[in-house]
Amino acid sequence: MSKRDFITVEDWNGEEIDALLALAARIKRGELLGGLERKVMAMVFMDPSLRTRTSFETAMFLHGGHAVVLEPGKSSWSLETEPGAVMDGTTVEHIKDAAQVLGRYADVVGVRSFPRGADWNVVREDRTVRDFARYCEKPVINMESSRRHPCQQLADAMTLREKLGDPRGKRFVLLWGWHPKALPTAVPASAALAAAHQGMEIVIGRPDGYELDAEDTALIRKIAQARGGEFVHIMNDPDEAVVGADVVYVKSWGAVKHFGQPEEEAAFRAGLRDWKLTAQRLKSTRGGQATVMHCLPVRRNVEIDDAVLDGPTSAVVDEAENRLHVQRALLLALLGKT
Amino acid sequence: MSKRDFITVEDWNGEEIDALLALAARIKRGELLGGLERKVMAMVFMDPSLRTRTSFETAMFLHGGHAVVLEPGKSSWSLETEPGAVMDGTTVEHIKDAAQVLGRYADVVGVRSFPRGADWNVVREDRTVRDFARYCEKPVINMESSRRHPCQQLADAMTLREKLGDPRGKRFVLLWGWHPKALPTAVPASAALAAAHQGMEIVIGRPDGYELDAEDTALIRKIAQARGGEFVHIMNDPDEAVVGADVVYVKSWGAVKHFGQPEEEAAFRAGLRDWKLTAQRLKSTRGGQATVMHCLPVRRNVEIDDAVLDGPTSAVVDEAENRLHVQRALLLALLGKT
Amino acid sequence: MSKRDFITVEDWNGEEIDALLALAARIKRGELLGGLERKVMAMVFMDPSLRTRTSFETAMFLHGGHAVVLEPGKSSWSLETEPGAVMDGTTVEHIKDAAQVLGRYADVVGVRSFPRGADWNVVREDRTVRDFARYCEKPVINMESSRRHPCQQLADAMTLREKLGDPRGKRFVLLWGWHPKALPTAVPASAALAAAHQGMEIVIGRPDGYELDAEDTALIRKIAQARGGEFVHIMNDPDEAVVGADVVYVKSWGAVKHFGQPEEEAAFRAGLRDWKLTAQRLKSTRGGQATVMHCLPVRRNVEIDDAVLDGPTSAVVDEAENRLHVQRALLLALLGKT
Repeated sequence: MSKRDFITVEDWNGEEIDALLALAARIKRGELLGGLERKVMAMVFMDPSLRTRTSFETAMFLHGGHAVVLEPGKSSWSLETEPGAVMDGTTVEHIKDAAQVLGRYADVVGVRSFPRGADWNVVREDRTVRDFARYCEKPVINMESSRRHPCQQLADAMTLREKLGDPRGKRFVLLWGWHPKALPTAVPASAALAAAHQGMEIVIGRPDGYELDAEDTALIRKIAQARGGEFVHIMNDPDEAVVGADVVYVKSWGAVKHFGQPEEEAAFRAGLRDWKLTAQRLKSTRGGQATVMHCLPVRRNVEIDDAVLDGPTSAVVDEAENRLHVQRALLLALLGKT
Repeated sequence: MSKRDFITVEDWNGEEIDALLALAARIKRGELLGGLERKVMAMVFMDPSLRTRTSFETAMFLHGGHAVVLEPGKSSWSLETEPGAVMDGTTVEHIKDAAQVLGRYADVVGVRSFPRGADWNVVREDRTVRDFARYCEKPVINMESSRRHPCQQLADAMTLREKLGDPRGKRFVLLWGWHPKALPTAVPASAALAAAHQGMEIVIGRPDGYELDAEDTALIRKIAQARGGEFVHIMNDPDEAVVGADVVYVKSWGAVKHFGQPEEEAAFRAGLRDWKLTAQRLKSTRGGQATVMHCLPVRRNVEIDDAVLDGPTSAVVDEAENRLHVQRALLLALLGKT
Repeated sequence: MSKRDFITVEDWNGEEIDALLALAARIKRGELLGGLERKVMAMVFMDPSLRTRTSFETAMFLHGGHAVVLEPGKSSWSLETEPGAVMDGTTVEHIKDAAQVLGRYADVVGVRSFPRGADWNVVREDRTVRDFARYCEKPVINMESSRRHPCQQLADAMTLREKLGDPRGKRFVLLWGWHPKALPTAVPASAALAAAHQGMEIVIGRPDGYELDAEDTALIRKIAQARGGEFVHIMNDPDEAVVGADVVYVKSWGAVKHFGQPEEEAAFRAGLRDWKLTAQRLKSTRGGQATVMHCLPVRRNVEIDDAVLDGPTSAVVDEAENRLHVQRALLLALLGKT
């Protein structure tokens, strides 16, 4: 029997994902306990975390299991990711060995690995998490890679259903926001895919030069259409982009064409501080009442103004809470008796 | 029903605190198990810890619960504490969001936040832990803030009762010690408050310039008097201060008037290395047998000599052990069915 | 009743160790559950870890207990190890106090402390872990010290038995490997001791200047002979050393005569990059089929080539897995009802 990984939502079929979301809803209503007794999750964090760490550790505990936290390069050895590397430099352990060993100790392994390196054509292959899955005999969960944040995507899908009832045909606006740093594109791609799976009408509002990876954009379009949603519309004006939105999902990301060149990217981004969600812009959404989403952490008063984040239509805390419920469902699906 | 926080001991009334201490004594005798099944504590450490982390994590486990450890700026995102901040700098997440999210995952949240910044008039407001409590829907426990260390205060009160039987009227000397760094005043204020609650006669021995915050001093005096103890006496000679003491509680802290100016404070402190508890000074306490207390970590042979710390009247390890018992009582009071 | 520590395998007698290994084999077959309910292990890591941390934390959990992870100098206070130190420098807490306090909170304490300082005659006394054991009222487990890695030694002994059936008289080659850093000698000494306890014929292949500590070499020889094995042979040619080997255990370590002088040691080591286990060298072992061992982390293509590590005779992942089983046995022996 082959093992099951969770690297992208799209690796699973639509019915499986719908079943996961239904299970998460039952968990949120308090209907499910236990199922992970004597099960161990190893979490490998190559980058920081608040929600992911707390929600997975809590999820394992609530069902009778336990999560171990590892931080390569800090509490644990720095990891080499290059296949065939002659390891005479600073990295101490190859992921091939770490993945095999953790597969012996744990029942499931989570991996967080943000983009590293300067070549998007390499980085976009998501080799770190995929190699980890290849070498590990136990299921591997992507806790955010260069390309995807599938646990966030599940939480976003759950939040869209909760807030909108039936999301089909409603307007989802992914709004780029200015940020002091060039951030990865994993979350915006995953968020738009969540909306696409729900059959929504998708708008991407971003400045010229901030296109998502072309393959991701095509995938968003294809899934939206297959699910009865609309084409991806792209707008390069933040005022125009949010008009009539049922949902505004704010997120910053770096320009892929300047990937790995933070100074050039910063110069390119310099004039774009007006790109944020203000109370004024929220007024032009449908009824001035669009649900406001963000994966957190959010730069307050830079990406979204306090008045919006603390206002009645903000769903950012519910979104974060749903991480716990979808991950409990995911762990039960991968490891438990459901 | 409103939630209950534990920011300072004085936020709770005297009967509640007496009940906590009685519960802690029962726990220490091994009379209580369970009560925190399926409960999660999130611990947010903005500063290091050995006792607090180990004792809370152990406390949750021993009653069937689980504690998650978060370290903003290291394993977790760096936190912004300023309300209304335009977050275009280095801090990644506002405590408003972190507090709300952790309140969804956990049943109780502990926060450790030592003084930051250079203005005592701002720092003394203890906004970080208080804002965390305001934004979090679950109880917040102060694991040491700029002003207070209430868990240490409970452990000190328990230790005073254990060592002295009836502490009322006995002499408690808070003795300033030299230290290579300017430390916070949270522990000395809390320790003196613990003694005041026990109705002790309180002496503060410290060099001129090392006054505690005036409001804290007044509170210590007021509580001591209300509990049948004595005024706060202040002495600026270490030999004189310890004469006749039943308890000597040694602690270093920085001069509030040089708060946030470590170089000036170090110059001010330079001539004061004689301020420590030696075996010779211990001889002048009551019967030469005063109970010696310190919150730990202690600078051996700088604040207290080895001969005293390793001698028969040292209570520092018992004090640390009592952290576990009082925190188990606190968690059961906040979360359990007692 | 005096407490029992686990600082070196040789502190326990041969029957006790055989019983531990037998218990570990039963655990690996899945025959033992529970036994550590309400038990807490505190793990003090002064150095990084992947296997040790994950396997101990998992071991405690699988039997109903819990492990707390502490990292002095990072999440926890930096520790002073010098007895009688006047602590006016950078270290914040003495191990005397940390050990006493953790002994009150936990039921067993693990300590990892790699060599520090520049004088091998001091470092070889292993004072940090031994002082920790002296001051702590609960059992202390050595999670790798300057001189020994006894948990690795148990796992290696278990692996030798699994792979060889009856290891007696078979040829165990400890092969030095080049490495970019001067590493401690704890693992090579412990690995050779594991083979000695199994009555194997022991060869140490290493360049001149890379002698192990003379006392350790004598102990390896003495135990091997007592168990019916052979003298320690020493060879300074990597091709010759591996001829006829049943097991090749590859490990790098620093030259003891340049201990604490990394630049001199690096110059001394500079011409020795040929010392590694290649596929070619593996062919000259017994039947070209020697079991290949390494404690991990391994520098791929520097200490051992990919073709060997990923080949059919590599036991490195099994060795790592066995850490879990032997540590479960050790914890049950120290704390449980077996």
